[in-house]
Amino acid sequence: MTTSLRIIPLGGLGEIGKNMTLFEYDDQILIVDVGVMFPDNDMLGVDLVLPDWSYLKDKVDRIIGIVITHGHEDHTGGLPFLLKDLNLAVPIYASRLVQGMIELKLKEAGLQKACERVTVSEGEQVTIGPFQVEFIAVTHSIPDGMAVAIRTPVGLALHTGDFKFDYTPVQGYGPDFGRLAELGREGIMVLLADSTGAERPGWTPPESSITSAFDTIFRDAPGRIIISSFSSSLGRVQLIVNMAHQHRRKVALAGFSMRKNVETARKLGYLDIPRGTLVDIDKIKGVAADKQVIITTGAQGQPEAALARMASGRHRDIDVVPGDTVILSSTPIPGNEEVVSAMINRLIRRGADVIYPPLAAVHVSGHASQEEMKLLLALTKPEYFVPIHGELRHLHAHARLARGLGIPEEYILNIENGVVLEFDEAGAVVGERLPGGYVFVAGSGIGDVGPSVLRDREILSSYGFVSVAFAWSFATRELTSEPEIVSRGFVYEKEAGELLRAAQEKLTAALRGTSRVSKRGLDEVTRETLSRYFYDRTGRKPLIVTTILEA
Amino acid sequence: MTTSLRIIPLGGLGEIGKNMTLFEYDDQILIVDVGVMFPDNDMLGVDLVLPDWSYLKDKVDRIIGIVITHGHEDHTGGLPFLLKDLNLAVPIYASRLVQGMIELKLKEAGLQKACERVTVSEGEQVTIGPFQVEFIAVTHSIPDGMAVAIRTPVGLALHTGDFKFDYTPVQGYGPDFGRLAELGREGIMVLLADSTGAERPGWTPPESSITSAFDTIFRDAPGRIIISSFSSSLGRVQLIVNMAHQHRRKVALAGFSMRKNVETARKLGYLDIPRGTLVDIDKIKGVAADKQVIITTGAQGQPEAALARMASGRHRDIDVVPGDTVILSSTPIPGNEEVVSAMINRLIRRGADVIYPPLAAVHVSGHASQEEMKLLLALTKPEYFVPIHGELRHLHAHARLARGLGIPEEYILNIENGVVLEFDEAGAVVGERLPGGYVFVAGSGIGDVGPSVLRDREILSSYGFVSVAFAWSFATRELTSEPEIVSRGFVYEKEAGELLRAAQEKLTAALRGTSRVSKRGLDEVTRETLSRYFYDRTGRKPLIVTTILEA
Repeated sequence: MTTSLRIIPLGGLGEIGKNMTLFEYDDQILIVDVGVMFPDNDMLGVDLVLPDWSYLKDKVDRIIGIVITHGHEDHTGGLPFLLKDLNLAVPIYASRLVQGMIELKLKEAGLQKACERVTVSEGEQVTIGPFQVEFIAVTHSIPDGMAVAIRTPVGLALHTGDFKFDYTPVQGYGPDFGRLAELGREGIMVLLADSTGAERPGWTPPESSITSAFDTIFRDAPGRIIISSFSSSLGRVQLIVNMAHQHRRKVALAGFSMRKNVETARKLGYLDIPRGTLVDIDKIKGVAADKQVIITTGAQGQPEAALARMASGRHRDIDVVPGDTVILSSTPIPGNEEVVSAMINRLIRRGADVIYPPLAAVHVSGHASQEEMKLLLALTKPEYFVPIHGELRHLHAHARLARGLGIPEEYILNIENGVVLEFDEAGAVVGERLPGGYVFVAGSGIGDVGPSVLRDREILSSYGFVSVAFAWSFATRELTSEPEIVSRGFVYEKEAGELLRAAQEKLTAALRGTSRVSKRGLDEVTRETLSRYFYDRTGRKPLIVTTILEA
Repeated sequence: MTTSLRIIPLGGLGEIGKNMTLFEYDDQILIVDVGVMFPDNDMLGVDLVLPDWSYLKDKVDRIIGIVITHGHEDHTGGLPFLLKDLNLAVPIYASRLVQGMIELKLKEAGLQKACERVTVSEGEQVTIGPFQVEFIAVTHSIPDGMAVAIRTPVGLALHTGDFKFDYTPVQGYGPDFGRLAELGREGIMVLLADSTGAERPGWTPPESSITSAFDTIFRDAPGRIIISSFSSSLGRVQLIVNMAHQHRRKVALAGFSMRKNVETARKLGYLDIPRGTLVDIDKIKGVAADKQVIITTGAQGQPEAALARMASGRHRDIDVVPGDTVILSSTPIPGNEEVVSAMINRLIRRGADVIYPPLAAVHVSGHASQEEMKLLLALTKPEYFVPIHGELRHLHAHARLARGLGIPEEYILNIENGVVLEFDEAGAVVGERLPGGYVFVAGSGIGDVGPSVLRDREILSSYGFVSVAFAWSFATRELTSEPEIVSRGFVYEKEAGELLRAAQEKLTAALRGTSRVSKRGLDEVTRETLSRYFYDRTGRKPLIVTTILEA
């Protein structure tokens, strides 16, 4: 039996503790968030990335609950995978909005009855095994974001979730500074805090600050207004709806997740849409162009999302035309800059006026900037500080801020995913790192695409491949058919003809002249001969595979 | 014979007129810049992208000269390819520094004697056929940047090249405001101006403004300082050398292009390095860590450049260790954000303190921001305005600025690469668009990788491939060997075994049962059977190729 508190951040690709954190005390495990990441550009063919929870596989009966801090995919999207994989049935604690949003997700996976669902509100406290868990209001780009304070016999841990300090949120409650200060006075053993915006000086502007930029655009736009944002940024959606109502425009929704999220939020009372404002996307054509607003998904340039389809003329209902004003109410997530830029250019080519930051202040972040981080540290006065949620660079920047506020170096714990932090009366120890990393979801397969497959795809993506087959008599040690060579992704078809014919001759000669007799030897002769020849002729190194049929 | 002036921007991928612009009058053609672009992330396996100059192929004897505005790759890197491809021998007009930099480039290509080389200075005028060409000092991130004024019987065209207005350049001359204003008073028919920074409000800070950030870092760094920047940013190199000298540190250069460019610039008197300051990279180990400065290439995260090799422990001379301070004196070029971020994280993991914008003001752009663009327009008062150098989004933003200054909509010419602008006494006409686009350089091949090859690589990069071979007797219409199936980049080896064996059985049954008799028919049966089977089992669609050997 352990009498220390163990904290283990998991998942999140380059981002530490982004998707999942384990709190373990007295052999009981509480999970905070179960999210997914979207793959990096070099993870070719991967659809989703899950945290590697193999540590939990032989400890399923010790898991006592799951707490979700807010409703974004990178904090909820892994739930169905986890429940299925571990055959897990424990209570899920979350706000009413989050419960509404994961309801659909679990239903699609046939898991709606798997777990008890406990709806909690800000300010509430629940007991989960040895943990006293308190939910504390913070603000983020989705309503009902909550930090969680986890009280254990060893001490109090505070996990911020994703947060910013917005005094004037468009929806829901503001941050509970008072409670954070109380906990700080009581004594916080360890603070785990969101580092996403740690490189950004100053204070993140409030969500409401974009109102004036939108107002100007709504006043001046000569025709239809198309606005893309994250479908989960419900504050943004509310703000756009308010603006449309004020300027007497109708609103239509494009994109599956936008319709789904707005429907859920509206049903739960998180969105206030005046009667008659919302029009079906296939009916909006009947409204005058300068009375239309389309709210759409696809601000990140995802090729199958609604805005990208509009930009390339593939959307069923919306043709972008001169006179349209398109607002990108977002900034590209790192890695998406190039596709977003290409989408902007396509929209301009169709004649649209495209407005995005910094051309106008049409977006603010949902994450704290440096001054908010300092305020959090000043309010909570933690003994130990663990920067989480961000790549190493962001954690490093956050740690620098903490040092600047006087937290001693040895009380700032720099960790990576899978590292076990252990707290007891004597203090904290940064422990072992669990084996494992991430799990890739590609197509319907989970975990069956690994590094060697990705390495092959990398070569294939740069040079293509050449496939060779010939029949060989192992009895007489001779070719019984000419080698046949095909290539894809290598060179132009018209040039390939001559090149492959010449390669065939070279290879035939090499096989006739070789003294090697095994299948493996013949394979080596084939690949060496061809790779040298192709490299000399083209400067490229395609992947080469050989098939030898026994004659 | 044409008596109009034709201006044709070429090349530059998404960027318009970035690499090459043609000026044509009286059947004579003057070329301004011949650059290359580096490929987008989705141009798999492409090394370089050249402008498509096929328009010139049957007009070689009408080309009368090449003018180079400044020494960056995207303005000079296409020269050897152009000279070879067209077997071209015409004078090349450029500054002393550019001549020095292209000298090496032409020598490597065996072209050093191909063209007469005319060295020109700012303020100089030369006659090239029907064109009076004047070189006007501007500032950029490399010394000797020059705008070119091209005087024709139809009117005066001003092409800015890449520019910013830096009152206090670290090296070389400042911008010649006086001459720009004189030309503006005389009457500029058309201005073609750099749009790169058109989305950035304000005024780009001068190169010298980063001195104070560097000074603080040099003062506080406990050990070695490693600074990466573009090797062509000679002003930056000078500034770092000055700083090192002042703080009594020795300087070593890492990366081939850094050493080459510094050597060229030093020989030509463009870099002033105090005696004894420069140390060979393999000798720097002998200097105390806190007396070392390494200037290195690789600020863009290019995997084979020196900094990326240091970050991943692959550099021969430099091991990054705790105590090192690494400065990224640059911002990522769009599309490079993800690799740069990964490199920063790797450096932090090695214990380095990594400093980059916005953590400190260690970089400024070489391109004008909005207020400088307005000043240029106000000085030059052009009749027609053509935004160039930038993606459509930047051109659009630049056009918006020009409208804001009162240039009428119809005098702002929005173009794309290959569009012919025609000017005569009656005014300007935006003409036809030449066929063609870009030419890809991959390995040693030029132009032999096209869209279909890239499409195949795209599939390969996501799903890999499956190669099938079997022997078939067309006489007896039967399989004479079991089909052999190999895959790469598709699924894990250990899972592939079972999957491919099952696929082999399925395929054998399908081939035994088919009534198709032709090679093509058998190929179709094979691919249909396997692609359906693999999709059902894995949700993926690998590329499938079939080889049928006749038995």
